[in-house]
Amino acid sequence: MPADRVSVVGVGCTRFGERFDAGYSDLVAEAVGEALADAGLDRRRVDAAWLGTAFPDAGVWKGRSGMDLAEATGIFGIPITRVSNYCATGAEAVRGAAHALLAGACDVALAVGVEKLRDRPPQESIVGMMLHDGHPVRQKGFTAAGTFAVYARRHFHERGMTRRDLAQVSVKNHRLAVDNPLAHFRKPLSLEEVMAAPLVADPIGLLDACPTTDGAAAVVLVRAEDAGRYSAPVDVAGIGLSVSSGWDLPFFDPGHAFLGFQATRDAAARAYSQAGIVDPRQDLDLAEVHDCFSIVELITYEDLGLCAEGEAASLLWSGATDRGGDVVVNGSGGLLSCGHPVGATAVRMVHEVTTQLRGRAGRRQVEGARRGLAHNIGGPGAIASVLVLEARG
Amino acid sequence: MPADRVSVVGVGCTRFGERFDAGYSDLVAEAVGEALADAGLDRRRVDAAWLGTAFPDAGVWKGRSGMDLAEATGIFGIPITRVSNYCATGAEAVRGAAHALLAGACDVALAVGVEKLRDRPPQESIVGMMLHDGHPVRQKGFTAAGTFAVYARRHFHERGMTRRDLAQVSVKNHRLAVDNPLAHFRKPLSLEEVMAAPLVADPIGLLDACPTTDGAAAVVLVRAEDAGRYSAPVDVAGIGLSVSSGWDLPFFDPGHAFLGFQATRDAAARAYSQAGIVDPRQDLDLAEVHDCFSIVELITYEDLGLCAEGEAASLLWSGATDRGGDVVVNGSGGLLSCGHPVGATAVRMVHEVTTQLRGRAGRRQVEGARRGLAHNIGGPGAIASVLVLEARG
Repeated sequence: MPADRVSVVGVGCTRFGERFDAGYSDLVAEAVGEALADAGLDRRRVDAAWLGTAFPDAGVWKGRSGMDLAEATGIFGIPITRVSNYCATGAEAVRGAAHALLAGACDVALAVGVEKLRDRPPQESIVGMMLHDGHPVRQKGFTAAGTFAVYARRHFHERGMTRRDLAQVSVKNHRLAVDNPLAHFRKPLSLEEVMAAPLVADPIGLLDACPTTDGAAAVVLVRAEDAGRYSAPVDVAGIGLSVSSGWDLPFFDPGHAFLGFQATRDAAARAYSQAGIVDPRQDLDLAEVHDCFSIVELITYEDLGLCAEGEAASLLWSGATDRGGDVVVNGSGGLLSCGHPVGATAVRMVHEVTTQLRGRAGRRQVEGARRGLAHNIGGPGAIASVLVLEARG
Repeated sequence: MPADRVSVVGVGCTRFGERFDAGYSDLVAEAVGEALADAGLDRRRVDAAWLGTAFPDAGVWKGRSGMDLAEATGIFGIPITRVSNYCATGAEAVRGAAHALLAGACDVALAVGVEKLRDRPPQESIVGMMLHDGHPVRQKGFTAAGTFAVYARRHFHERGMTRRDLAQVSVKNHRLAVDNPLAHFRKPLSLEEVMAAPLVADPIGLLDACPTTDGAAAVVLVRAEDAGRYSAPVDVAGIGLSVSSGWDLPFFDPGHAFLGFQATRDAAARAYSQAGIVDPRQDLDLAEVHDCFSIVELITYEDLGLCAEGEAASLLWSGATDRGGDVVVNGSGGLLSCGHPVGATAVRMVHEVTTQLRGRAGRRQVEGARRGLAHNIGGPGAIASVLVLEARG
């Protein structure tokens, strides 16, 4: 176990949305420039970097290697690693930087996540995936919404959950996003509007789903022992990542209940143990969780231990995860409102949690926030990351 | 700087070649199984892994995330990171594992490289790259051979190098490969044959180029302090990685001479400093270098400091880099003979150097080998890695 920690000493994030005004490199340059300025560092002080882009072939041909960070920022002559692990991609950038810092391989590390998804996708990206993935299940209507819809359906059957419960997640997050100037959508929605939206994959409706979005985010990290010389550092208290069997692989996990994600539970156990979190609802003030679809936020309440199994909907309606509640979940508006530029999402979450722990979140500010986490779940519910951040002093 | 080191305690490598007999997952399972058996470890002992695949879309839809390592091996419930950095991809897997070990984030790490390139590439892979990369230079005939041909041409002009010099690299490496049962090609070639081969990108001929190949390799790593309990550990004494401006970006480096690769020089300086290498020709016994094209081996002699600038061809013809020479370069046959399954290549090199330093290389054995390195250069000469390995005791 690492005796030492790393700290976030600078954060930057572009506005998320349809960014036809900015190319991949523009987004990278903006987020990195902001993070370096926040840390008070010249780019020449960065001595290693990680670039997280999950789908370099989805819209633009960028992000296959560290070169695309170097070219966008003019930072040359240092190691720049490209990581990619579905929706945990941005978390991998932070995790790689943390390991290298703790290993003594660098002193000032940059972790960047970026994705450009709104450009006309070349025919081959999604179509190619469908045509060329030889997996017998995936070829038959495999979509992100379809992957998670089976979990919602199972919760309806086993736990009495309803479409109204799903919709309330979206209502909460869209309302909170009104106060987030970086969010893709900032318009409040009524429960009726969400429930009246067309179905994407029954029971998931269009407004239960996050949009497709462009964006970039960046953080500057140093070893905690070096963080004192920066203004407002925030410590990374725990890092968990785990790969489990996905639902599409029942032969590896024939007893899979379709009610939760083992990867999230494993990643959280690891991160909580490092951070000394015993009762998450008590010990955390806020959480940015991977609400790619509303059902996933509800499942994640249980997987993260914010409530007991089967109590996610009650927790939601109690207001405990809303502004002013015990643990504000997705106070940024979440993926549902911010959008989900895949590689950027986890880094945006670290930006948001850091901003909260610094007390600089404006109208979104969680009073007295001391500890928060960023959670992602990717692939067919098979790759999860949990990063716990902690205020100093 | 890391006070500690990591050690290789298990290696595995599939036969490289046209592996229509084996899928991506089969290759992964074979390499990982061999590496674990070599280390004497059950797969349940692995507590973190890195998967290097550079082109998941080139032939098969595999390698986009850590899931594809989990699914192939049945190793679940641990973090599995996918890395990708053009030809340094496999080196990134080793580097990521080393950092995590030294950070104390894991105790037994697996680094895997794999690429399946001989399957019919979907139309979109290469064609897509050409069509969708908006870069003004790349669109006009940008190929790997073309990228490096300009360096050869410049060496002809500035240094009096000839096609005969290039061809001799290929002659040497193909002769050495006869003794490597894992190589794609194991047939010796004459100087005349190499020079008579059709030109791919003047002055690079077909037999100056590495083939397109399938393959996988895996290594098990632990902290050096834990390596004593394994049989025949080999230490990783230095790790360097650097991203420079590529030749296609003259606006970043208008004085670029087209005679060497700054990324290799930077990566070597870093790795040499860690490993205490002062005179590479004296201090190294062997080197596996990135001879994707014969010119690149010659350039790399100079970039790695095996000879002075302008003396690469003399060094080659002197026999100093051939079997029995001062520093045996590409005793495995190199990429020219082994082939270049991109993500696998650096890991195969670590397998080869480890095998040599253990004294188990059979007819390829370099007498009394104590220190060797693995070098890769990728993208337009912009990303380089150098890993220095050292025998114990």
